[in-house]
Amino acid sequence: MTESPENAVNAHQAAADPRNDTLKLYLNGRIVPKAEATVSIYDSGFMLGDGLWEGIRLHNGVWAFLDQHLDRLFEASLALDLDIGMTRDGLKSALDETAAANSMTTDAHARLMVTRGIKSAPFQHPSFSRQGPTVAIIVEHSKPSIPRPIRLASVAHHRGLPLTQDAKLNSHSKLNCILACIAAEKAGGDEALMFDPFGFVNTTNSCNFFIVRKGEVWTSTGDYCMNGITRGHVVSLCRENGIPIFERNYSLVDTYGADEAFMTGSFGGLTPVGSIDHRPMPAGPGPMTDKISALYRELIKRHCSGVEAA
Amino acid sequence: MTESPENAVNAHQAAADPRNDTLKLYLNGRIVPKAEATVSIYDSGFMLGDGLWEGIRLHNGVWAFLDQHLDRLFEASLALDLDIGMTRDGLKSALDETAAANSMTTDAHARLMVTRGIKSAPFQHPSFSRQGPTVAIIVEHSKPSIPRPIRLASVAHHRGLPLTQDAKLNSHSKLNCILACIAAEKAGGDEALMFDPFGFVNTTNSCNFFIVRKGEVWTSTGDYCMNGITRGHVVSLCRENGIPIFERNYSLVDTYGADEAFMTGSFGGLTPVGSIDHRPMPAGPGPMTDKISALYRELIKRHCSGVEAA
Amino acid sequence: MTESPENAVNAHQAAADPRNDTLKLYLNGRIVPKAEATVSIYDSGFMLGDGLWEGIRLHNGVWAFLDQHLDRLFEASLALDLDIGMTRDGLKSALDETAAANSMTTDAHARLMVTRGIKSAPFQHPSFSRQGPTVAIIVEHSKPSIPRPIRLASVAHHRGLPLTQDAKLNSHSKLNCILACIAAEKAGGDEALMFDPFGFVNTTNSCNFFIVRKGEVWTSTGDYCMNGITRGHVVSLCRENGIPIFERNYSLVDTYGADEAFMTGSFGGLTPVGSIDHRPMPAGPGPMTDKISALYRELIKRHCSGVEAA
Amino acid sequence: MTESPENAVNAHQAAADPRNDTLKLYLNGRIVPKAEATVSIYDSGFMLGDGLWEGIRLHNGVWAFLDQHLDRLFEASLALDLDIGMTRDGLKSALDETAAANSMTTDAHARLMVTRGIKSAPFQHPSFSRQGPTVAIIVEHSKPSIPRPIRLASVAHHRGLPLTQDAKLNSHSKLNCILACIAAEKAGGDEALMFDPFGFVNTTNSCNFFIVRKGEVWTSTGDYCMNGITRGHVVSLCRENGIPIFERNYSLVDTYGADEAFMTGSFGGLTPVGSIDHRPMPAGPGPMTDKISALYRELIKRHCSGVEAA
Amino acid sequence: MTESPENAVNAHQAAADPRNDTLKLYLNGRIVPKAEATVSIYDSGFMLGDGLWEGIRLHNGVWAFLDQHLDRLFEASLALDLDIGMTRDGLKSALDETAAANSMTTDAHARLMVTRGIKSAPFQHPSFSRQGPTVAIIVEHSKPSIPRPIRLASVAHHRGLPLTQDAKLNSHSKLNCILACIAAEKAGGDEALMFDPFGFVNTTNSCNFFIVRKGEVWTSTGDYCMNGITRGHVVSLCRENGIPIFERNYSLVDTYGADEAFMTGSFGGLTPVGSIDHRPMPAGPGPMTDKISALYRELIKRHCSGVEAA
Amino acid sequence: MTESPENAVNAHQAAADPRNDTLKLYLNGRIVPKAEATVSIYDSGFMLGDGLWEGIRLHNGVWAFLDQHLDRLFEASLALDLDIGMTRDGLKSALDETAAANSMTTDAHARLMVTRGIKSAPFQHPSFSRQGPTVAIIVEHSKPSIPRPIRLASVAHHRGLPLTQDAKLNSHSKLNCILACIAAEKAGGDEALMFDPFGFVNTTNSCNFFIVRKGEVWTSTGDYCMNGITRGHVVSLCRENGIPIFERNYSLVDTYGADEAFMTGSFGGLTPVGSIDHRPMPAGPGPMTDKISALYRELIKRHCSGVEAA
Repeated sequence: MTESPENAVNAHQAAADPRNDTLKLYLNGRIVPKAEATVSIYDSGFMLGDGLWEGIRLHNGVWAFLDQHLDRLFEASLALDLDIGMTRDGLKSALDETAAANSMTTDAHARLMVTRGIKSAPFQHPSFSRQGPTVAIIVEHSKPSIPRPIRLASVAHHRGLPLTQDAKLNSHSKLNCILACIAAEKAGGDEALMFDPFGFVNTTNSCNFFIVRKGEVWTSTGDYCMNGITRGHVVSLCRENGIPIFERNYSLVDTYGADEAFMTGSFGGLTPVGSIDHRPMPAGPGPMTDKISALYRELIKRHCSGVEAA
Repeated sequence: MTESPENAVNAHQAAADPRNDTLKLYLNGRIVPKAEATVSIYDSGFMLGDGLWEGIRLHNGVWAFLDQHLDRLFEASLALDLDIGMTRDGLKSALDETAAANSMTTDAHARLMVTRGIKSAPFQHPSFSRQGPTVAIIVEHSKPSIPRPIRLASVAHHRGLPLTQDAKLNSHSKLNCILACIAAEKAGGDEALMFDPFGFVNTTNSCNFFIVRKGEVWTSTGDYCMNGITRGHVVSLCRENGIPIFERNYSLVDTYGADEAFMTGSFGGLTPVGSIDHRPMPAGPGPMTDKISALYRELIKRHCSGVEAA
Repeated sequence: MTESPENAVNAHQAAADPRNDTLKLYLNGRIVPKAEATVSIYDSGFMLGDGLWEGIRLHNGVWAFLDQHLDRLFEASLALDLDIGMTRDGLKSALDETAAANSMTTDAHARLMVTRGIKSAPFQHPSFSRQGPTVAIIVEHSKPSIPRPIRLASVAHHRGLPLTQDAKLNSHSKLNCILACIAAEKAGGDEALMFDPFGFVNTTNSCNFFIVRKGEVWTSTGDYCMNGITRGHVVSLCRENGIPIFERNYSLVDTYGADEAFMTGSFGGLTPVGSIDHRPMPAGPGPMTDKISALYRELIKRHCSGVEAA
Repeated sequence: MTESPENAVNAHQAAADPRNDTLKLYLNGRIVPKAEATVSIYDSGFMLGDGLWEGIRLHNGVWAFLDQHLDRLFEASLALDLDIGMTRDGLKSALDETAAANSMTTDAHARLMVTRGIKSAPFQHPSFSRQGPTVAIIVEHSKPSIPRPIRLASVAHHRGLPLTQDAKLNSHSKLNCILACIAAEKAGGDEALMFDPFGFVNTTNSCNFFIVRKGEVWTSTGDYCMNGITRGHVVSLCRENGIPIFERNYSLVDTYGADEAFMTGSFGGLTPVGSIDHRPMPAGPGPMTDKISALYRELIKRHCSGVEAA
Repeated sequence: MTESPENAVNAHQAAADPRNDTLKLYLNGRIVPKAEATVSIYDSGFMLGDGLWEGIRLHNGVWAFLDQHLDRLFEASLALDLDIGMTRDGLKSALDETAAANSMTTDAHARLMVTRGIKSAPFQHPSFSRQGPTVAIIVEHSKPSIPRPIRLASVAHHRGLPLTQDAKLNSHSKLNCILACIAAEKAGGDEALMFDPFGFVNTTNSCNFFIVRKGEVWTSTGDYCMNGITRGHVVSLCRENGIPIFERNYSLVDTYGADEAFMTGSFGGLTPVGSIDHRPMPAGPGPMTDKISALYRELIKRHCSGVEAA
Repeated sequence: MTESPENAVNAHQAAADPRNDTLKLYLNGRIVPKAEATVSIYDSGFMLGDGLWEGIRLHNGVWAFLDQHLDRLFEASLALDLDIGMTRDGLKSALDETAAANSMTTDAHARLMVTRGIKSAPFQHPSFSRQGPTVAIIVEHSKPSIPRPIRLASVAHHRGLPLTQDAKLNSHSKLNCILACIAAEKAGGDEALMFDPFGFVNTTNSCNFFIVRKGEVWTSTGDYCMNGITRGHVVSLCRENGIPIFERNYSLVDTYGADEAFMTGSFGGLTPVGSIDHRPMPAGPGPMTDKISALYRELIKRHCSGVEAA
């Protein structure tokens, strides 16, 4: 998944916060202690990965880019023919309520999950589970820090064609990304660099991916990866600040020859890449990554102070 | 998923058994009432579809083809780098224990599920969840009956390439099959007929698929679908009984022109197909389907009376 | 084919005009009554679909965008190595003559067809039919009206790769589109929504296809569909009027999530889409479709009053 | 199309028979002189290539393998949802009647064509033409002779995927084969050698294709080419006569390195290939081609004397 | 290869210069007579095509666009994990030294080659040859002249996917281009027009390819062909001079219908195309080709007079 | 390349033989000392990888399976339109002469290389190099030994489609295999496990690949890899000895779940695989590998004692 903090290095840092052991979570309309936030093993999410989710940061009391996250969630629900059963306002209230229950106002990260709900029998057909969704929200204390740049390893596992499983769905069926991540780890990487079905550089297993070449920023066409909200902001920020940005096909040769590379996601914002296939990036976590990172932090700050719409 | 009763028609019948409301289930070493069979929303299965499962029938006190199911489960676990943490005997005991807790000896169907377990933080990387799997077993009273032949609708959603997500993995990430099923339902079908990535007829969304043409039985190559255990038995039974059987590429034209068609799965055995894209099968639930169905019931009987090895 | 009125709903309306029963048509240099407009069953068009055609509207005495239609026809004839045997002026005169024979000056639609002509023997090789083409022109009274928005159904049949059969050829070999249309009808649709070979949304079986998302207009790259002349005008009109327009890959999820959708073709101009796979469009035949429709009608008016070149 | 005499060299010979100038043909239930065998330019076959056909030889008063041809025709009609409106016996009578009208008993070749009939309006949707098919039969005097072996030229135009247009449909939409044939002619060949979409050697533009390598006979898998009836007989004859025969993928290198090559079709039976891409076949029209050709002539003789079922 | 003079027609002209018989060449740090410029048959370049190269023109004492050539060479060396063992300055000195040894100041063409060096044993693994590269430089007297426009023939051999062999690598493994060239020659062409793996027009076997349509210049996306330096300059020159230029997918139909076509490469600059598949270009070596050719010659002149950076 | 000893582990052992420092080699008709076995940097093999080769073992005075190697070489030369300029007997004499010059009778390995020869100018077109081939033969003392089982790493680099570069050509253009090998080394492997373009397990970078599953032996279809001569013998030996052998598609899941795996090549015969992607093979270098290895050694012994034809 793109919009989240799942790369191993900075996520492990975040995961270490002891306050997260005693969280209160949201489950189907109620705030419950972490230990009671459970679902039946008949849940469609557990059995079949039949659900959708969003990762959303809380910054200075504001859910960053919440409208965009809810747009994406509701749009995906049409494809799944999944009735979320709550309004946008209802979801926002649930997020707020969960944060409040944990006295969080900033440096927190939510995972808002909606599955097709408990099945009446353990069978795949959605007709066994359309009675109502499971809505669950985790919000954790999290402040990403990057002890060292990420090591990427390219892997043979790739993202699929749109009719295999649409990359635009941020779903609970993430096994192909996990297989890629395992392959990367075996090859000595922290995170997998995944290709599209034709061999162009596409995305990492949990984030979007960018390279910097001679002052230009390149990312994949977006056709075969999550339409990351942070990705979208990076593209816009480049355009607004006169940084040449291209959404295009490019290959491994182009990537090894890049000056810098970085990943994007809601959790970590921009995360610099230190090496790809054990070839260090020439400019390391370089000046362009720093520059766009600063622009992005600035954007969040503006956005979360209410100065500007999401 | 191939090895299960998930086609809507016969499954709904089975699901109606009121005894299933008060089942006892297996969860991580304990037998618990159905209502207590819950997992944390931090479970890898719930969050990410990161798990594997098998559907296994109990017949006359014997788990049908259990060795083959366990072979497939342990083989898949290598690809996921997922330590099941139990031996084959341990899993068998757990199945037996669950059946016993519900006083079941026959006409029961188990869903044995293994996920990567509870994550320490809501992130994709497997390193957050490798501490131990979640092992859950549902066994339900179930006796498939077929009120009417299945109506298939072909859909644009297809199964993927092996490096997108290996069709050999019977996983908890089943969203692409569910999307196909929804599309079929919209088109007036009970179940989806899915193609492989190149447009050859492949499988239904939850079962394997066979056609009968002029006394020959055809099924797909198996390259892009679940290596169904019932499928394997049908192929073997045809060979042993002089019925010409071909695992081969074939197209929609070949399929519309078939005399009969049937689906296979552990739950339902052979299920006849009544129509494809609103074109009725000429021979309906025809003589070849009946013949192989009888051979398969005979095989289960022999197998489950201990006369013959799985 | 893209440039024509072939979607079932508005075409049926048009087809109902009783004046069309007694038309006069053009065939190889002569104006003949409809009943005498026949070709040998040895004709290359009849036997093999070996021909090309254009659909052209007559508006206020002017053939709309005739130069573009003739450019496309002559360009395609190079690929088929088919000598049309008439000049552009000759073809225009033939169109005029046919319209005049039916006293048509507006609200009429021509189908100009050129096949490789009568074969000396019923064999595929073009050398049996290169002696001269068959040129036939039908002009019908037609005023498209839309009793209700079109229902689209997505189908598995897709348009092919350029070397299978170039989508740029508006030919008499349309069977793949017809197969798609039949599949859509079986699924409860009026017209098929077809993908490209990789699963991106591409075109309908007889028209080009556009979606509207948050004020932006999206259509496919054009790589795998007819280079529709109306499509081209819609793209240009958007550019000229400050409406963001993108020719790009997009998926079914993007499409279900669209606010509006419409089809384009020479016959119907813009035709609003009411539902896709039984999911109604949120904004129905919405404001953007109306806006561009008005711009297109204005363009035709200008073009056909001689104010502006095609 | 596979089952026909369309390769340029032997077809031209056949086409030269002057008796074919004054044929009587079958059209929708009537025997008519050749000059009156015409269809409206509104016919679905002419406009859109929306029809199916079979090429069938008359040998000693018997239509060779007629049952197989009718099986294929009726099977294809299911895919097209095209009601032929006649029984198998009715079609056979029509063939007989046409032959009788021309006093033919042997060395004659029929082209039995069925299109969706005359459209009520010139639009693609089948609903405009479902009222009844056009059934037309041409039978020509023809005795294939081969003045010289065929020169094949491989071309970039290939046959498509099954969901682009199913190779199992022997339709009136043959433009992609014609484009291939034109390309071959430009490159100095009589007939095109076409690949499948992945680059394996597949078929020629109008016939099936076989190579002979070290005593083995190879042909393509059949997945992407017409399921030729002659092709099927060649495969069966090899099996019955102990000649190793393989339906398999093979490449251009395998083909250039073959000892012999031949084409098959209903019209010409086996036609030897003299060169491929200007590389002469080492063994020319060699001993294996001669051997199988003799077996095939023997089969037709037996079949058409009533000794053996089709 | 793109950046070189390898099309047969103008190259043969150039090759005829008798001064090239007695050249002095550079080999691993030394200037040697042509006859002594030899490598072991254990060289990685000879055995396995394991090397990289650049073609660079000398114009008025300046190596045209040398920085870009060296950038591309060093970038490619990262992908091959090949240590060139010399600095950029070192390579430039070697080029200068070679030119000086032959008293060349202009109208000369260099081929700078770097292979993985002599292997200790005749095995594929790079570990047998990492001890040091072979660096060789040929500079020949050459002044391209074009006795007649090039005849292109389209061929079935195509350029591969990026993970088959990255088109961005200008390597010593050029067999697929050579196979295409041979196929073109058999079909009556001087040079092959190659498609990408999906059938879009891509490149010729040794140059980049452009078409001109109604005042617009089109070339392929660049995804599947060499990132030619001349190609890049043509794109830039069009942009700077208000000539509409599109890097896009286009098909054979678009290409046959073009007004002009030309090839680009370091050796020949722009080379006009006279015919494609024996279809003459309508506008021949036309006005747009002339215009851009003049702009390119101007650019080289400026660049090589030191007025402007590469 | 398949038929050779290039896997790093056993090859390095072989390469250590000091007698190989002072070999005599064959070059264009002459026996020369190793140091004088050089070719011009204008050689087609060096510049462009434009050549073919075979690896052949000398065993007890007999070139193992020489006829098969020469068949493959001459067949490939047709595709390259490369006139070898020597007869089969001439090549055999050259091999014998080279072995004799080094007093070798057994435990020696030849690399017989044929390139298109010296080019008159440094351009790609074959017309610059058709004047005559370069024929070179290296024969080295070599006795493969396996200090430890091979570690395979799967990589994203795959073998190409037949029209990209035919896998049946054992050419001098091996860069894609070398790129795969480098990727494997970075991931901690000795040799790369390569997929076909669709993601099925295919081959290693220099050998063919087999797995053993429950007493069955599986290898890829052979469509996308070298038609290895040792591979062919292993397939035949299995058939002759009642070992179930399947040439089929299979995936990474099937491979991780295998009991044993081995590679084949002319140099090493059968080489056991110890691990794949750091997952050890359960049965290690197991009993089936040993059994087939023994059968293969036996075959060579019989073959090279003249008891049996190649």
